[in-house]
Amino acid sequence: MPDHPISRYPIPDLDDIPDDLKDAIVAVNEKAGFIPNIFLALAHRPDEFRAFFAYHEALMERQGGLTKADREMIVVATSGDNGCQYCVVAHGAILRIRAKNSLVADQVAVNHHKADITDRQKAMLDFALKVSNDSRSVDESDYEALHMHGFDDDDIWDIAAITGLFGFSNRLANFASIRPNEEFYTMAR
Amino acid sequence: MPDHPISRYPIPDLDDIPDDLKDAIVAVNEKAGFIPNIFLALAHRPDEFRAFFAYHEALMERQGGLTKADREMIVVATSGDNGCQYCVVAHGAILRIRAKNSLVADQVAVNHHKADITDRQKAMLDFALKVSNDSRSVDESDYEALHMHGFDDDDIWDIAAITGLFGFSNRLANFASIRPNEEFYTMAR
Amino acid sequence: MPDHPISRYPIPDLDDIPDDLKDAIVAVNEKAGFIPNIFLALAHRPDEFRAFFAYHEALMERQGGLTKADREMIVVATSGDNGCQYCVVAHGAILRIRAKNSLVADQVAVNHHKADITDRQKAMLDFALKVSNDSRSVDESDYEALHMHGFDDDDIWDIAAITGLFGFSNRLANFASIRPNEEFYTMAR
Amino acid sequence: MPDHPISRYPIPDLDDIPDDLKDAIVAVNEKAGFIPNIFLALAHRPDEFRAFFAYHEALMERQGGLTKADREMIVVATSGDNGCQYCVVAHGAILRIRAKNSLVADQVAVNHHKADITDRQKAMLDFALKVSNDSRSVDESDYEALHMHGFDDDDIWDIAAITGLFGFSNRLANFASIRPNEEFYTMAR
Amino acid sequence: MPDHPISRYPIPDLDDIPDDLKDAIVAVNEKAGFIPNIFLALAHRPDEFRAFFAYHEALMERQGGLTKADREMIVVATSGDNGCQYCVVAHGAILRIRAKNSLVADQVAVNHHKADITDRQKAMLDFALKVSNDSRSVDESDYEALHMHGFDDDDIWDIAAITGLFGFSNRLANFASIRPNEEFYTMAR
Amino acid sequence: MPDHPISRYPIPDLDDIPDDLKDAIVAVNEKAGFIPNIFLALAHRPDEFRAFFAYHEALMERQGGLTKADREMIVVATSGDNGCQYCVVAHGAILRIRAKNSLVADQVAVNHHKADITDRQKAMLDFALKVSNDSRSVDESDYEALHMHGFDDDDIWDIAAITGLFGFSNRLANFASIRPNEEFYTMAR
Repeated sequence: MPDHPISRYPIPDLDDIPDDLKDAIVAVNEKAGFIPNIFLALAHRPDEFRAFFAYHEALMERQGGLTKADREMIVVATSGDNGCQYCVVAHGAILRIRAKNSLVADQVAVNHHKADITDRQKAMLDFALKVSNDSRSVDESDYEALHMHGFDDDDIWDIAAITGLFGFSNRLANFASIRPNEEFYTMAR
Repeated sequence: MPDHPISRYPIPDLDDIPDDLKDAIVAVNEKAGFIPNIFLALAHRPDEFRAFFAYHEALMERQGGLTKADREMIVVATSGDNGCQYCVVAHGAILRIRAKNSLVADQVAVNHHKADITDRQKAMLDFALKVSNDSRSVDESDYEALHMHGFDDDDIWDIAAITGLFGFSNRLANFASIRPNEEFYTMAR
Repeated sequence: MPDHPISRYPIPDLDDIPDDLKDAIVAVNEKAGFIPNIFLALAHRPDEFRAFFAYHEALMERQGGLTKADREMIVVATSGDNGCQYCVVAHGAILRIRAKNSLVADQVAVNHHKADITDRQKAMLDFALKVSNDSRSVDESDYEALHMHGFDDDDIWDIAAITGLFGFSNRLANFASIRPNEEFYTMAR
Repeated sequence: MPDHPISRYPIPDLDDIPDDLKDAIVAVNEKAGFIPNIFLALAHRPDEFRAFFAYHEALMERQGGLTKADREMIVVATSGDNGCQYCVVAHGAILRIRAKNSLVADQVAVNHHKADITDRQKAMLDFALKVSNDSRSVDESDYEALHMHGFDDDDIWDIAAITGLFGFSNRLANFASIRPNEEFYTMAR
Repeated sequence: MPDHPISRYPIPDLDDIPDDLKDAIVAVNEKAGFIPNIFLALAHRPDEFRAFFAYHEALMERQGGLTKADREMIVVATSGDNGCQYCVVAHGAILRIRAKNSLVADQVAVNHHKADITDRQKAMLDFALKVSNDSRSVDESDYEALHMHGFDDDDIWDIAAITGLFGFSNRLANFASIRPNEEFYTMAR
Repeated sequence: MPDHPISRYPIPDLDDIPDDLKDAIVAVNEKAGFIPNIFLALAHRPDEFRAFFAYHEALMERQGGLTKADREMIVVATSGDNGCQYCVVAHGAILRIRAKNSLVADQVAVNHHKADITDRQKAMLDFALKVSNDSRSVDESDYEALHMHGFDDDDIWDIAAITGLFGFSNRLANFASIRPNEEFYTMAR
C-alpha cells in the first residue's frame, strides 16, 4: 500500500499558517490525540477554514431539541448517501462516541431505515435526505410530520442546516479527495 | 395577491440583533438601496449569519482566475438546477451586473448549454453541475478537462467550493422559503 | 458577443415560403411588433409549421376552466423543468402579460412550489409535471385530486395536452438550438 | 375479463363529428380493416385530431434518409421507454410490417441495444432516447456521431421530431388511458 | 439478417457437459419442443446452471397464494423495467399460457398500470417494482398494503424473491447478450 | 436498546429443519464461531437455502482471475450502492480478512473511486456498478475496457454474476429486514 496523500491540494507547513489556525489545530490535536485531516486540508485557505469551522461549531455545538448524537447521525446518513468517505468515516466515529453505540454509524451510513434508531430519528433522517436530494419540494407537510415527533421549528432548522453544511462538506471532500485519518476507523467500536 | 412573508422563520427586529449584524445590514442597504432578504432571514441565528457571510465573501470576492461574473454564473446555473428561486433571482441580478449582459442570467438558469457564454465557461459550469449532482465521481479527468481551458487547481477549488456553498444556500432558501426581494427581478435588465 | 443564429437549421427567405406561412408571420409581426423566432425556425418545414401552430392554437386559445394565464403557466413550469430556454423566455413573457404579474414567470420557471400562485394552480402544475416526467403512473387518484380543486375532465385534458405539446416543443427547441428573441426578456416586467 | 373502454374520455358517435374527421376514420377503416382507437379517442377534440394527424403524416410519410421502418422503430423504442402501451402495441405492429421482420418490434420496445438492427439504427435510437430523456444536453457532438453514420441534418430533424411528437402522443395515451386495438397484437407476427 | 449467436459466451457441445445438465436439457426439449436458450447459455458453468434452475423451480413451482400466472407476471413486469429482452420474450410467452390471455404479457411488459389485470395484481406488481428499484425503502407499510389485498407474508416473500431472482437473471441475460428463441415470440398469441 | 429480531420472517428451530441445512449451519458455526444470520433467515425455505448457498459457493469459491478479495469487494461496493446493511457489514468483514486490509471495506462501501485499491479494481467495480444499475446498456466497449486491465471473459462473467447474485441477496435482506450479526462489525479491524 503506497503512502496516500491527505488531499489533492497542498497541505501548508504549520509554521506558514496564521496563528489562529495553528491554535485551532493544536487544540484539536490535544483533544483528539491526532489532527483530523479536514483541518490540514482547509489550511491553505485560511478564510474558508475559519468560516467552515465557525459554521460547524454553530450547528454542531448548539443547544436545542437535537442531541449531539442526533446531529452526528444526520451527518453520517446524508454523507453516506452523497458518497463522502471522509464524512462517513470521521463523523461515524464521533457518532459512535456521542450515541454510546458501536453499531449505529455503520447502520445509518448504509440504510437508516434498517438502523437501531427511534421512529423520531427515522423521521429526522427522512427529512434530512429530502432536504439533501429534493429541497425544492419541501413544504408545510414536512414540517407537520416533524412536529408530530416533537421537533419544533428551531430543531427543523438545525436538521436542514446541518444537512446543507455537510452536503457542502461532502462535495469539498469528494472533489479534493480529502482522506479520513486511519484513527477514525476503529474509534469507539 | 396577499402580502408574502420573507421567510417561514421569524425576522428579528433590527434593534434586537447584535451590532455587527446590524452594521452589515446597514452597509448592504446603503450599497444596494435595499436589504436583500437573506440578511434578514439569517439574522435570528447570529453565528450562522456571520459564518455564512464570511464564507460568501471568502469565495465570491477572491482574486484569481475566475472573474466575478464567472462566480455569479456558477451560482445561477447550480441554483437553477437545484430549484432555488431566491438564488436564481438574486444572483441572476448580480450576474447581469457583473457580466454587463442582460440576457445571460435567464439563459444560464434554464440551460447553460444554450447560453451566450464561452466554451471555457461551459466547461466551468459542466464541472460545477457534476460537483453539485455527482461529486462522488469527480476524478483526475475532470481536472484535466478544466486545465485544458486554462483553469488552474486554485480556480477549480473556487468553482467547486462556490458550488458547494450555494448548494447549501439553495437548501436553506428552499426549506425556509426565503423569498427574493422584488428589486432583484428587474435589476440590470 | 458574436451574432447568434436563430436556429441550427436554415431560416428560409420569406419570399421562398408558402403564402399561408408568410401570412401567419406577417400577422404575428404586426401583433407583437417582432417575429418570434419559432415561426422562422419552423418555416423550412411548412407542413410541420402548420400542424404545430394549429395544435398550439387549439390548446392555448381554447375556452374552458383554465385561464390563458393558467395555460402559459403550465408551459413555463414544464419548460423550466425540461431545460428549454426558448419556451421559458418566450412563454415567460406571455405569462407576465396574461397574469398581469411581473414576478410569476421567473418564480414558476425555477420552482412552482415557491411561486405566488393559488393552491389550485399548484395542483395543476404538480399534475403537469407528473404528466411530463412520469405519465405512465397517472391514474384515477390524479383525477380525483384535480376534481377537488374544481378542474373537470376537460380541463385535465387541457393541462395534460398542453404539457405534452410543449414537451415536444421543448425537445425541438433544444435539439435545433432555437434562440428566444431578445424582446421577450424584458416584456411586461 | 370485463369489457375495457377505449379511452377514459368520451368517444363521440360518428354521426356527431365533423365530416373531415368522419372521412379520415372511414378511410383508415377501409385501409386497415378496423379503426385504430387513437382516431376515436381524439375525435371529441376535432381541432386537436386534425393537428395531430397532420403532424403525424408530415413526419411519418416524409421522403428522406430514414425509411418508414426507421421511423416506426423510433416510435417503438421511445414509447417503450416512456411506458406507453398504445404506441408500443400499435406502432410495433406497423414496424413489423414496414421492416418485414416479426421480431424487431418486441426487441426494440424492450432494449434496442440487443435488437437485430444495424449500427446505424442503434445510433439513431441512441439519439432518439437522448432527445426524449435529456434534450437539454444535445449538442454538436451528437450531430457529428450521426453524420458518421450517414445521417444528414434533415434526417436528424426527422429523428428528433418523431421522438418529440410521439413523446407527446405517449403522454396523451397514458393520461387518457387509450387502449390499443386487439388487432395490433398479432399483426404481422 | 446475419445468423445471431445465442450468447456472447461459448455454448458447450451437449456431449461435453455433465449428465444431469444434459438430462435437464433433454427434458425441457421434450416438454417445450425446443431448448430455451438460457439452458444452453448457462451450460458452460455447471454449478451455476444447477443453482439457477434449482432456485427457479423453488420459486416458480411453489404452492401458495400466488398463481403460476401471477409468478410469471412478476417476471415480465420487472424484466420489462430492467430492459431484459430474453426474460420479457420468454416469460411473456409462458405468461400468455399460464394466464390463458394473449394480451397481458405485452401490456405488463410496457406498463402494468394500464394492463387488464386485477387491483390485487397491480398491488403485487407495484411492490415487485419497489423491491426491484428501491428495496432499501421497503417497510411495514408495504406489507400492510399487500395484506389488504389478501397476500400473506409467505406470498410477499414469493413476490420479492421472484423479483430478486429475475433481477439477477435480467443482469445475466443483458451482460451476456443471451438471445430469446424465436419460438417464444409467437407462442400462445 | 430493545432486542432486535434477526429477520421479519420466522426462524425455525434447528431441530425442525432438514439435516443438510442443519449440517451446513453447524459447519459454519464451527468455522466462524457464530452462525451468520443469513443462514437462519433462509432456513424456513429449505429449497431456496440450498440454491442460494450453492450459487454463493459456485461464484465466491471459484478459481480464476479474480482473487477472493476481489470477489468480496464487488459484493461490498454494490451492496453499499443498494443500501443493504446485512451485506455491507457481513461481507465488509470478510473483505477485511481476504484483503488483509482493515480500511478497504468501509472505503469501498461508501465510494470506490476514493478507495485504496488498484486501477484494475476500480475498473472492476465501475463495471459491477454498471451491471447493477444499467445492465441494459452493457456492450462490447465494456468488455474492451476490462480486457485492457487483464480481465478475460470468464473473469467478466464472474464480476457480473457476483453483482447479480448479491443484487438479489440485497433485495432479500432489505425486504425481509435481515440483520447482520454484531460479530461482523468488529471483525479484522
